[in-house]
Amino acid sequence: MAKNADAKRMKILEAAKRRFAHFGLAKTTMAEIAQDLSFSKALLYYYFPDKNRLYASVFEMAVDEIITETTAKIEDANGVCQAMDAFLSTRLQIIKDNYSIFEYAYSLRSELPPDVEEVLPKLFEKEIQQVSTILRKGIKHDGLVVDDVEVTAKILLISLLGMRLGILQEVKSLFLPPSKEEFDYILGLQQKLAKIFLNGLKS
Amino acid sequence: MAKNADAKRMKILEAAKRRFAHFGLAKTTMAEIAQDLSFSKALLYYYFPDKNRLYASVFEMAVDEIITETTAKIEDANGVCQAMDAFLSTRLQIIKDNYSIFEYAYSLRSELPPDVEEVLPKLFEKEIQQVSTILRKGIKHDGLVVDDVEVTAKILLISLLGMRLGILQEVKSLFLPPSKEEFDYILGLQQKLAKIFLNGLKS
Repeated sequence: MAKNADAKRMKILEAAKRRFAHFGLAKTTMAEIAQDLSFSKALLYYYFPDKNRLYASVFEMAVDEIITETTAKIEDANGVCQAMDAFLSTRLQIIKDNYSIFEYAYSLRSELPPDVEEVLPKLFEKEIQQVSTILRKGIKHDGLVVDDVEVTAKILLISLLGMRLGILQEVKSLFLPPSKEEFDYILGLQQKLAKIFLNGLKS
Repeated sequence: MAKNADAKRMKILEAAKRRFAHFGLAKTTMAEIAQDLSFSKALLYYYFPDKNRLYASVFEMAVDEIITETTAKIEDANGVCQAMDAFLSTRLQIIKDNYSIFEYAYSLRSELPPDVEEVLPKLFEKEIQQVSTILRKGIKHDGLVVDDVEVTAKILLISLLGMRLGILQEVKSLFLPPSKEEFDYILGLQQKLAKIFLNGLKS
């Protein structure tokens, strides 16, 4: 019985992801998702009490995808530079591929649904751990010297995330998400920053 | 005659700055500023068509103060590290001293008055020039090797500004400005980042 419920929940999440990825949060209705699955609206609401809650769950699924894929790439990488490049490019590629899902989180808009806002610190915390792993790789194999790995990872991660602020400053539209083309520009700046930063950790 | 007009305009700006610095934009009225100066409201509106325009002018004055003071400190500094420390601490001290004036710009809120928003790219452009000057100091005196000074300055500046994002991620309140205590924490992170980054530019 629980297994069947899980399967239904997963079906709803997958249908919702397709809808949100195409049309975004605002232009998707619960009725449309129910229709896609030939489910009743009541069944949908049994699993997800409102659209924001459903959206937050889809968002969390996409966040888990980022974490899983980047973790694998970091493990496979030879050396700190390759690990960092893989982390940055994989991360941004998944965000690009799920553009309409990440749009809300990326646009710093004040109407961010609270359920979505709760997912972000979890991603941030996980990413600090990933950058810490990358730095430890560098300490072990590439001669990096790091006083406090977690603090250093945090400074580097925040700097990298801040690249988005730069784009926003330039285009003067603080409340629009970056376009798909601007993602590539952000990635370029992030790669340059990471290279200089990692070089700065060599004694 | 023009000189007299300039003097009046300056008096209004100074009175407005005191009001805004104490009470912020929302809790200050044009009537109060006029009263402080024993000016008529009509005279105030002759110089500044609305409160947002007046606020933007006060904001621009504070921005000019940042630029003037940091430029002097950068010129006086011996070496790239001292110049960078002076730039960061002076900048943040003026923002702290004029907390209620910068609050709006700092809080990423969507209701940023358009007149204020126009001042920000000007500050950003000027700050890129200042960080470029700091880097050139480092190239000349401290053995830094930099391919493209302006691009590198931009990446460093954006990273430093991004430290604010980090605070916001942690406190989970994307739309509140940092508290005065958090400014000191931001400065600490900025100084660590700048040190590693500048070290990374040594060949």
